[in-house]
Amino acid sequence: MAANGSNVVSRGAVRFTEEQEALVLKSWAIMKNDSAHIGHRFFLKIFEVAPSARQLFSFLRNSDVPLEKNPKLKIHAMAVFVMTCEAAAQLRKTGRVTVRDTTIKRLGSTHFKNGVSDAHFEVAKFALLETIKEAVPASMWSPAMKGAWGEAYDHLVAAIKQGMKPAAA
Amino acid sequence: MAANGSNVVSRGAVRFTEEQEALVLKSWAIMKNDSAHIGHRFFLKIFEVAPSARQLFSFLRNSDVPLEKNPKLKIHAMAVFVMTCEAAAQLRKTGRVTVRDTTIKRLGSTHFKNGVSDAHFEVAKFALLETIKEAVPASMWSPAMKGAWGEAYDHLVAAIKQGMKPAAA
Repeated sequence: MAANGSNVVSRGAVRFTEEQEALVLKSWAIMKNDSAHIGHRFFLKIFEVAPSARQLFSFLRNSDVPLEKNPKLKIHAMAVFVMTCEAAAQLRKTGRVTVRDTTIKRLGSTHFKNGVSDAHFEVAKFALLETIKEAVPASMWSPAMKGAWGEAYDHLVAAIKQGMKPAAA
Repeated sequence: MAANGSNVVSRGAVRFTEEQEALVLKSWAIMKNDSAHIGHRFFLKIFEVAPSARQLFSFLRNSDVPLEKNPKLKIHAMAVFVMTCEAAAQLRKTGRVTVRDTTIKRLGSTHFKNGVSDAHFEVAKFALLETIKEAVPASMWSPAMKGAWGEAYDHLVAAIKQGMKPAAA
């Protein structure tokens, strides 16, 4: 399926096997209906590992509401989690990271503007994998499933980082 | 506030309660004889969360030896772990972060030179607490123990960061 004007293509074709796709789809099917809750835990884990990452979010910087109760964080966390999982779920079918063009551009510029570092992307990856591990049945989790989600995440970050580069023109 | 020749003082007196000291001493007594192994796990956890942190260590950058088997990493990890725990164990008695002057100066300049960021210090804190949690009996671990080690670590990092500032004179 060709990337048209509304998709963003990460550099080169994405290698994502049928087995990896199956592992992502199987776990995403279980998590999907609980996205709000799991997404929230994903972000709380990020801030547990790297509390300074809170400074990257305007709605956390300027708020007295405790992190756990911040309604804007809950909404944001769910949106990011669903976007991440949907991109992973479509990765093999499309052969590329598929998110709406406007979104990846905005993501790129926002992450760039806020000075998000490689370490932050790594902490988010760790938090995502830990969160998924805790969200699926213990018997379902495996090194292969961890690898599949990890690779899918890496492709998403590569696409965001492309969007973080200053425009060539 | 006088730092004498052999000690480094973090800004202001360190508040560390008798209960916190007891929690640190109790767990350190259990871990001490296994410092090499636990220190190694501490560093492997850091690199699990933030693989890019490997670039901060010359003996990892220039080595083909797998991370888990690198003998220099094992030695370094044990030294850092023991220093961290000893500083925590002495925190209340001395009222300050006690490490040898030469060491903290070297630590400060090395961390500064290598561009260690707040996020890296946070990842190391998370890794330390996770490692201690897994190293002590489950019945011993508690939020209070986590808090005691976390505070002790924060004081150590504050001392290192003081050493990271360009010399005033």
